[in-house]
Amino acid sequence: MEPEYYVNGEILPASNATLKINDLTLLRGYGIFDFFRTSGGKPFLMDNYLDRFSNSAALMDLKLPVGRDKIKEIVLELLDRNRFEESGIRMVLTGGYSEDGFTPGDPNFFILVEPIHFPDEKYYLHGIKLITYEHLREWSGVKSINYLTPIKIRKDIEQNKGYDVLYYFNGNILEVSRSNFFIIRDKTLVTPEKNVLHGITRKTVLNLARDILTVEERDLSLKELTTASEAFITGTTKRVMPVTNIDDRIIGIGEPGPETKKLMEIFREFEKSYQAE
Amino acid sequence: MEPEYYVNGEILPASNATLKINDLTLLRGYGIFDFFRTSGGKPFLMDNYLDRFSNSAALMDLKLPVGRDKIKEIVLELLDRNRFEESGIRMVLTGGYSEDGFTPGDPNFFILVEPIHFPDEKYYLHGIKLITYEHLREWSGVKSINYLTPIKIRKDIEQNKGYDVLYYFNGNILEVSRSNFFIIRDKTLVTPEKNVLHGITRKTVLNLARDILTVEERDLSLKELTTASEAFITGTTKRVMPVTNIDDRIIGIGEPGPETKKLMEIFREFEKSYQAE
Repeated sequence: MEPEYYVNGEILPASNATLKINDLTLLRGYGIFDFFRTSGGKPFLMDNYLDRFSNSAALMDLKLPVGRDKIKEIVLELLDRNRFEESGIRMVLTGGYSEDGFTPGDPNFFILVEPIHFPDEKYYLHGIKLITYEHLREWSGVKSINYLTPIKIRKDIEQNKGYDVLYYFNGNILEVSRSNFFIIRDKTLVTPEKNVLHGITRKTVLNLARDILTVEERDLSLKELTTASEAFITGTTKRVMPVTNIDDRIIGIGEPGPETKKLMEIFREFEKSYQAE
Repeated sequence: MEPEYYVNGEILPASNATLKINDLTLLRGYGIFDFFRTSGGKPFLMDNYLDRFSNSAALMDLKLPVGRDKIKEIVLELLDRNRFEESGIRMVLTGGYSEDGFTPGDPNFFILVEPIHFPDEKYYLHGIKLITYEHLREWSGVKSINYLTPIKIRKDIEQNKGYDVLYYFNGNILEVSRSNFFIIRDKTLVTPEKNVLHGITRKTVLNLARDILTVEERDLSLKELTTASEAFITGTTKRVMPVTNIDDRIIGIGEPGPETKKLMEIFREFEKSYQAE
């Protein structure tokens, strides 16, 4: 059975869920999105994601055609109709049908629900390798649909045995293509604050970490990597994932570090308690 | 009567010309395009545009599903069916339907034909104002569909009475959002060579200009603007358009300069002779 998606007021089978080709996201890449997931079958931290989605829309001057309560209602309906064990929910707000191929029209709004693919357990056991690349996302505070760079370079990353790309710009580390980045040194957790997308998992982990570590949100230079005893990334489907290699450098002893493991555990506990609410 | 477009092998009325919402251009902004026009009803310099389109596709690792002769055939068919006085032809090659929302599938290929809107004559008589903005396009040699920045800032440009935005990066002038940029000083024409999209009109004008001016394709610093006696932009629908103001600076005497006017005329002559071929 094919999945069912929401498009502009209707729930439709995937093959009928279409947009006309003069949408400004297709013609000019102008659009925003957000992505969250279920945990135990129920939406996880949905309000946080909806806050960010609204914020992206406002920053790009795109008007959401439906209110928050209605979005929640649609999401629950889609989850009920699609019935995946765990789901990823992708909301996209486009530049709309454009008369002149440049000026936004009334945004199109669609929601896809997909079965979620969590990363293989080996990455959590052994850690991942990141490959650095100089890149600053345009409008980095906005979750825009622009992923030209990480898709273009994905094969190079794979060839270098990288799990993903770590962006830096002007000597400062920024973020991973779809994750935030952290280092730990001397019981202090450091993560970039500026020029990155503020992840919901990032925020959650920072809050949880304050009980066991000093937390610093600030510029993080590439040079500072040499001082890190641990590193990890956070993301909606990745949770807390240890980083053991960056380019040809080994982080710490090349294994997931003790504080990282604690945070992985604390995050899983938090998720369980959220499910139970 | 609604226009007819080409989508993946079919010519369809605009309202039926659709793509499914899991196309990677909608989800991740991964796609390329090109845009050319007719002159006297017939495709103008089409082979040059098709060369660039193929090159963009190759650079982004997207496979064109149809060959060049077939594309030309489709374009002529679309022109015949739509019968605008003069047409703009927009070819888009997308990242395709993606299984995981990140990895490209088989590209979707569509072609829109639209009635062309040439700029008002006043811009050629009096020149335009450009507003500078620091921005380097990702994969600047590729005509990608990413126009997040110029669409996002378009209202600021208008508020500053700008016709368009002039990008610079690291102190060097690059290009206008959909045009190339040139200055003239002492019978020398200078235009940026690196980090810009090489326009077809740019190339044509450079070739024509060699008869009357020394031509330099090289880095052009922001500081050098102060030395320019003339400036202009080139673009598919703009031809050669004089620039008389950049931010708060007046170029030359604040009117379209004599060499610019010659180039405007020479380009129109070239276009007429092309029509007559």
